[in-house]
Amino acid sequence: MTDTCPVAFFLSDSTGITAETLGNTLLTQFPAQRFERHTVPFLTTDEQARHLVAQIDAVVAAGRVAVVFSTVIDPGVRAVLSGGQGFLVDLFGTHMPQLESALHATASLQPGRAHGLGDALRYKSRMSAVEYAMEHDDGQSIRALERAQLILIAPSRCGKTPTSMYLALQHGIRTANFPLVDEDFDRRSLPAPIAPYAHKCFGLTSQSLRLSQVRQERRPGTVYASLTQCTWELRNAEEMYALNRIPHLNSASMSVEEISATILQHMGIQGHDPA
Amino acid sequence: MTDTCPVAFFLSDSTGITAETLGNTLLTQFPAQRFERHTVPFLTTDEQARHLVAQIDAVVAAGRVAVVFSTVIDPGVRAVLSGGQGFLVDLFGTHMPQLESALHATASLQPGRAHGLGDALRYKSRMSAVEYAMEHDDGQSIRALERAQLILIAPSRCGKTPTSMYLALQHGIRTANFPLVDEDFDRRSLPAPIAPYAHKCFGLTSQSLRLSQVRQERRPGTVYASLTQCTWELRNAEEMYALNRIPHLNSASMSVEEISATILQHMGIQGHDPA
Repeated sequence: MTDTCPVAFFLSDSTGITAETLGNTLLTQFPAQRFERHTVPFLTTDEQARHLVAQIDAVVAAGRVAVVFSTVIDPGVRAVLSGGQGFLVDLFGTHMPQLESALHATASLQPGRAHGLGDALRYKSRMSAVEYAMEHDDGQSIRALERAQLILIAPSRCGKTPTSMYLALQHGIRTANFPLVDEDFDRRSLPAPIAPYAHKCFGLTSQSLRLSQVRQERRPGTVYASLTQCTWELRNAEEMYALNRIPHLNSASMSVEEISATILQHMGIQGHDPA
Repeated sequence: MTDTCPVAFFLSDSTGITAETLGNTLLTQFPAQRFERHTVPFLTTDEQARHLVAQIDAVVAAGRVAVVFSTVIDPGVRAVLSGGQGFLVDLFGTHMPQLESALHATASLQPGRAHGLGDALRYKSRMSAVEYAMEHDDGQSIRALERAQLILIAPSRCGKTPTSMYLALQHGIRTANFPLVDEDFDRRSLPAPIAPYAHKCFGLTSQSLRLSQVRQERRPGTVYASLTQCTWELRNAEEMYALNRIPHLNSASMSVEEISATILQHMGIQGHDPA
């Protein structure tokens, strides 16, 4: 990070999640450029805004570019921000008037509704999905598998755990995950506890070399981490998925967000709106 | 959900996360209005776009309002979408030209960069934070607490686990969490394993009645869930936080997103950009 790179500010009257998501999505279009980033959540008063504008203006006065992504709703705060020298992407100012017109309705102008508790029942079901995913991580519990909306299966270290957590936390999907081990491959059948739920299973695979590298970091020099073992497990997992008609994907070059979106689309599972 | 409520479409050439976040944030400004919602990830071809526009136009032809939030980057796909009858909020079309001008740079127009693996090191550290948070949930492991960036402490069911998972998964923060129990309160001191790390601790509290309700759902009719016990634990936890100068918040009416943003701001922890 140099002292001259552009500075990105993410401003919000609430958590800052939307401002960061919006801003970072736009900034990924400039992959060659590094940015200094500052998130300012809970920005609700004119005084806070004036203090911040002074910081932004100081950046610009130092000859640097300042881009400001704001989801602030309060008209007074927005007016202060628009008086600054930074390049302002004002989400509400830009989109709300047309949206009001399209919906024939008036915006409530209540700040910070997007990532709060919102619909209490929906929030509660997200939290209970997290609890479910924790209890059903890595085959720890085979109780209540009938309540799972999704069961991820894979050899060790193909991404089951973080994907389960993401699906539970962001989408409220009750996700169990279950490891496939040598004994399953020797028997050439799904592990007994999940066999009745094959229709809810989704399989993950990886690339042998990548999987071996990941396992080496955890348990260097073991058979478990050897390329031979990884190759054998992945080949057997793929055969098992094919034999049992279990949809699957190769997670080696995908993020948990991409894996999750692909699974939801493929399985036709409607998650909650991400919070 | 009625057949006449507006329909919101969230379109993306990648996961759909940004389109949903952007769109839902704007839609929360219309709390009285219900929306039918459809997320369409991985929209990359003109043909897919034409098929989708036909669906959107059918909604409009049926007399309903269609609002379309799009983060698609491909100019051809965007041109097809803009030919539809829905009300289009085109994130890239709206903001990119000005942003290019502000940054004196040209957008790469590569689709789907926002929620992919991105910076491999950053992604890896997020995944390793998830692993850390899983291993250090609810005091399960006291190994490597010196590596924690944050230790959440609280009586049972105040939100430690989902907050830890959120901070790890979204922000890449190595978060441990540790329960406060009767013995800690009787001794009036922090649990021994975390005592050396008081400077990394953040406490959660709740409201007695709310905590009792949450515990009743888990273990109905127990002393653990009684209002008396909950009141006692919360009062003792607050005293312990004060005595040890541990910052804390009341989680009773906050979402994990709000709790997390507040903690990061208060502790001055710089997380990764949320993916």
